[in-house]
Formats: sequence, structure tokens, C-alpha cells
Amino acid sequence: MSQSRRVPAESLKTLCKEVFRQLAVSEEDARITADVLVTASLRGVDSHGVARLRRYYTDGLQSGMIVAQPNERIVAETAGTALIDAGAGLGMPVSYRAMQMAMAKADATGVGVVTVRNSNHYGIAGYYAMMALEQDMIGISLTNADVNVVPTFANLAMIGTNPIAVAAPAGEERAFVLDMATSVAAVGKSIVARDRGQPIPKGWATDETGALSDDPARVLQNIAKRQPGGMLPLGGLSELLGGHKGYGLGLMVEILSAVLPGAASLDETYPKTADGESLPADLGHFFGAIKVAAFRPLDAFKASVDDVIRRLRQTPRVDGAPRIYIAGEKEHEEAEQRRKTGIPLDAKTEADLKRIAEELDISVDF
Amino acid sequence: MSQSRRVPAESLKTLCKEVFRQLAVSEEDARITADVLVTASLRGVDSHGVARLRRYYTDGLQSGMIVAQPNERIVAETAGTALIDAGAGLGMPVSYRAMQMAMAKADATGVGVVTVRNSNHYGIAGYYAMMALEQDMIGISLTNADVNVVPTFANLAMIGTNPIAVAAPAGEERAFVLDMATSVAAVGKSIVARDRGQPIPKGWATDETGALSDDPARVLQNIAKRQPGGMLPLGGLSELLGGHKGYGLGLMVEILSAVLPGAASLDETYPKTADGESLPADLGHFFGAIKVAAFRPLDAFKASVDDVIRRLRQTPRVDGAPRIYIAGEKEHEEAEQRRKTGIPLDAKTEADLKRIAEELDISVDF
Repeated sequence: MSQSRRVPAESLKTLCKEVFRQLAVSEEDARITADVLVTASLRGVDSHGVARLRRYYTDGLQSGMIVAQPNERIVAETAGTALIDAGAGLGMPVSYRAMQMAMAKADATGVGVVTVRNSNHYGIAGYYAMMALEQDMIGISLTNADVNVVPTFANLAMIGTNPIAVAAPAGEERAFVLDMATSVAAVGKSIVARDRGQPIPKGWATDETGALSDDPARVLQNIAKRQPGGMLPLGGLSELLGGHKGYGLGLMVEILSAVLPGAASLDETYPKTADGESLPADLGHFFGAIKVAAFRPLDAFKASVDDVIRRLRQTPRVDGAPRIYIAGEKEHEEAEQRRKTGIPLDAKTEADLKRIAEELDISVDF
Repeated sequence: MSQSRRVPAESLKTLCKEVFRQLAVSEEDARITADVLVTASLRGVDSHGVARLRRYYTDGLQSGMIVAQPNERIVAETAGTALIDAGAGLGMPVSYRAMQMAMAKADATGVGVVTVRNSNHYGIAGYYAMMALEQDMIGISLTNADVNVVPTFANLAMIGTNPIAVAAPAGEERAFVLDMATSVAAVGKSIVARDRGQPIPKGWATDETGALSDDPARVLQNIAKRQPGGMLPLGGLSELLGGHKGYGLGLMVEILSAVLPGAASLDETYPKTADGESLPADLGHFFGAIKVAAFRPLDAFKASVDDVIRRLRQTPRVDGAPRIYIAGEKEHEEAEQRRKTGIPLDAKTEADLKRIAEELDISVDF
């Protein structure tokens, strides 16, 4: 990001929270939603951070597609599980509470699973998985999403980038935090490339002819118009290098996060009228918590995670590779850096945030 | 398989069971182990089927590396979880019982997780995940394995092909059964290519220089000798096409299946003496069961899975693609076929099975 200035995380969190408050979201829900967005920006996942405030959240609240004060309710519950209907509210607050509930159940029975339906975009999957770390649990977070990915041998996007997030606590080392789209690359990376006028690597997406394309504008336009082509599942175009595995993982996430709670699935998740007008979304999420101490003494587990991380880090490297990473390490280091120096905002995002603030009569301190 | 003859599944199951009985394995454990092996062969996963009887199982039982009548015991237990020590026995019987236990817990609390340590090769991961289908549950099965895969930027195999298996019941359609190595391709496929003198696709593995290799003999020899190079994680060589995601998934499986139960991990899973002699393995497994009816009425869930499968199947295809598959569909069709026509055995496998039978004084009906 060349043309960017840096803004303290707290300033952005205050702004986001105020924006949601002005749009009739409760104090608690506004706080949670702002924290999820700013956490994404801190971790360098800008495609899921404050830059998406309007597109994914305030537009929906203002149009009524997202309910500011939803009737969130528990539909089914057992000792180890629950199903929550989010009442078409914001995805973040219900997800936060669902993960808390999964952890409470795990504390009592060793493992908890809570699923959510009738929800909206919940931000970064990793946020909820990482909540488990504070309670010395392993956290799991999955969601379905708008369709961007072409199943193997198909030529139309029919599945979301359906992320998998799993976090496990370490001792002296940083926690393991996997947070990955099940596509080759997240859609946000293609959006960034398009906005910068850059090509994307061949292998990320196909065009309307079914061939690999390096033109993000063309790929994204096709997806938006429900024309052939789209992002590729992890493993790529064919079965040769395992594209069917990425597709299979995406479908696994769809079943666990959307079919299990009874949310809409695949191309029905963000429905539209015949005229192309958006209707309310019905996304689903899956949250799991596993209590480490139900299996092993916590210290022994953490020492083993440390040991695994260190042995991996010390593995001989290919020529020119500076280091071997553990999932979550880059994002953790980015967050440490951004907490000190601020979150970089490109000119477009900064202007957009200030416009939202102005529209809602909120003062901005940056 | 050109030079192969077909043998009824029941004949192979009887033979395998008799072999294990002769090696002092209990009636029940012999039955389970034979069923897992023959199920793999039926589903076309020959690399994990009867062809591996000697290499993975009878050699170990005869040398005492695998204990025929292990002291299998529950080390820790809560309402929703358990940890089992397999007593260095065969991987299949303890895994079968662990999955049964996970399902019993899920029946009571909605979700169950049982992990296993001090175990051996458990065959196909999907077998245990599929056990959940009979009880209308979603099944999960993970295991660590001998190191074959190079972490992203590393030049030495430090992680197994660590499979992920997840099965979910359908209604009129066939169940969803994902059963995938987290590497680009399973090691077994490289072994088959080597034995046939064929190259492997560039993108599956690296040689000792860190470059992509199409020579399976070279790659497999390097792995066996702990020389640089190895199989690549799903997504391939670099971060460009998501290799770090496959590596992250493999490490996730390592943490859940080996670190959580306290099994050995990474390159310590199959330890050797300084002279290169094998010591007993200490593998770990993870089994999860989720009771569908704890979330939604079962019929509604199954109808939704059917609907998802049908919509995917009807998606427009790329030119020349005959159909769109659902995970597990190919294996299911292969099993239907092989149940009728028998399991194809190549000459080497047939001779090896007959030699094992002869050594153990077992008569063979094929």
C-alpha cells in the first residue's frame, strides 16, 4: 500500500462502534462487531477489515437487509450443542455469543459445537477460533459465503470460499492459528489486484471459457453476473494437482456450517429477485471448542505444541527461503507491528470511512 | 491394472482375518482389521488395502513392533470426550472402538470426540468417518502418519500426508464422504507409478535440490533416506497457489490427532535407532461424531444434503467434462462394481498374499 496513511487501531474501533450505534445496533453488538473488523485490519487481512464497513455491513443495516436489533434465539440445545437463529442480524455478535456458548459447553462436557443460521457475513473466521485460546481450548470456526468458487469440472461459481479456521494454544510460542479460504486464493486478493490494475497469478481463477485467467476484473465481473468461470478451489483447475480436494473441503464447510444449522446453501445464500435486487442473506456458521485439559494436562499439551513448532521452524530450508512459518505467525507479527504504527488505510478506504462518518454525523479523530 | 485377476471381497476378508488370528490377534480385532483393509480395497484405495497386509501389519506383528494383544485402556474421559492408549496394538480395532465411543457420547450430549495415542497405521481414514452414517451422525477421522510431506519453504519431509475424513448422511443420494490426504497426492500413487516405471505429474513432489520432480523412485528414496525433498502439501510448492494452506491443514491434523492425545509427532512418529533400525511407532488419531438430530430434524437435514448434491451435479460443466462429482461418489461406485466383480489383485500382490498364507499355514480359496 503505497498511498496510505496509518491510523491507530483504537481510532478505527471507536469509529466503527459509533457507526453501528448510530445505525441502531446495541452497545454490546456494536463493540463486538467493531472489534472483529479492527482485528482483521490489525492482522493484515484488509479484505475483511474496516475497508469492508460499507459494502458488507452499513449498506445492509441501512437498507434493512441486516436487522439492527434482531430477534436472536436458541432453536435447539443439548449438553454439548446448540443451534442459534441469528434473526437476520449482523454476523459478528451472534458468532461471538455462539463461540462463547460452545466454550461453556466444552468446559462442562469436554467439547461443544454451536451452529448459527439466518445470519450475515461474520468477518474473519479466525477471530472466533482464537477466542478459544483465552480459555486454553482448541477453537474451530467455519462459515459458508457468497458463491465465488467453481466446483471441479464445473464452469459456474457454486460454492463460497468457505473458510476453515482452527486455533490451538501454545506455551512459549505463539498459538497455531489456521485461517484459510478453501479456494486457491481469497477473493479479496483478486479485488485488490483489480483495483491496482495488476494481473493475478494463473491458477487462481478461470474465465468464461473455462480457461485459466490472469485478469481479475474479468473474473470478478463474471462471478457478479453469474456468468461462467470463477475462483478455483485449493489444488486448482483439475484433479491432477488436487483441485477436487479443495472443492471437497469447501463442500465439507458448506455442510457443517450451512446444512447442519438449516441455513441457505450454495447459490441460494445471497438470494436475488428476478430483477437482480438483493434479498436478505441467510448464512450459516459452525463453531467448535475442545477443552485441552479433558485429554492431557494443559502444560504438557502446550509444551508439545511448542516442540512441534520449533522442530518445524528448524527444518532445513530450500535455497533462498528465509524462514519456515507456522499458520498464524505472519498475521500475529503484522498485528504487533500495526498495533504500534497504526493500520494503513489507502486513500479510497479513508475517504469512504470519513464519508460514512459524515453521513451519520460522527466526528473522526484522524 | 492390466495383469490382474479379480478375487471376491469375502475371500480376501476371510484370508486377512485368518492371518491376524494366526498372529495371535483376538477374534474381534482380526475381524475389524480385515474389514477395514478389504473396505479400502473395495473402494479402490488399493494403497491402503490388502496389498499393504505385510508391509504395514503382519511384519509389525511378527517382529513384535505391533502388539497382538495390547493393553488398550481409557486414560481420560468426560461426558463428551475420551483419550485411549492403544497399547501399541493394531490401529484399526482401537480406532473402531474409539469411533463407537465418540458416537455413544454424541448420542448422549450431541457431540463426541475421542482421541487415541500409542497406536499404529489405521488404514483408510474414511472407514471410521463412515461408521457415523449408520447412526445418522456426521463423522470425522484424522490421523498423523509417517513423514512424507515438506512444509512450505522446507526441504525435508517433516509431516505426514495427514488425512482428513468427514462423512455426512444424505437421504436418497449417496452420503458425502471426504477422505483426502492433505498433500497434493497420496504417497501410494507415487509408489504405484514407481512400480510401473511411470513418471508422476510435476507438482506432486520435489527432489533433493528442492525442484519439482517427476521421478517417483528418486522422490521415494529421498524420503526413505531422510534426504531433502518430498511430497508437496495441497496447493503445491510455494505460497503462490496456496501450498501454505495444505501445509497448515496437515499441521492442524497433527495437532488434533497427535499432540492432543499425546502421541509422538512429525519425524518422531516412526522412530529409528542410530543404526536405522525401526522402533515401535506411536501414532495418534482423532475421531469426532456430531448428532444431526441435536440440530435439525433428521429428514430435513437429509433433504438439504440431497438438494445440495443435486444442485452441484446440475451445474454447467467445462467443455468435455462428463460429470460433476461429490466427494466419495467415485469410491462408492467402485465399491459397488468390485462387490459384484471382485477385487483386482496384481500378480505381485496375489503372490505376496499367498506367501503370507503359506507361511502361516492358511488355506486360500482363490
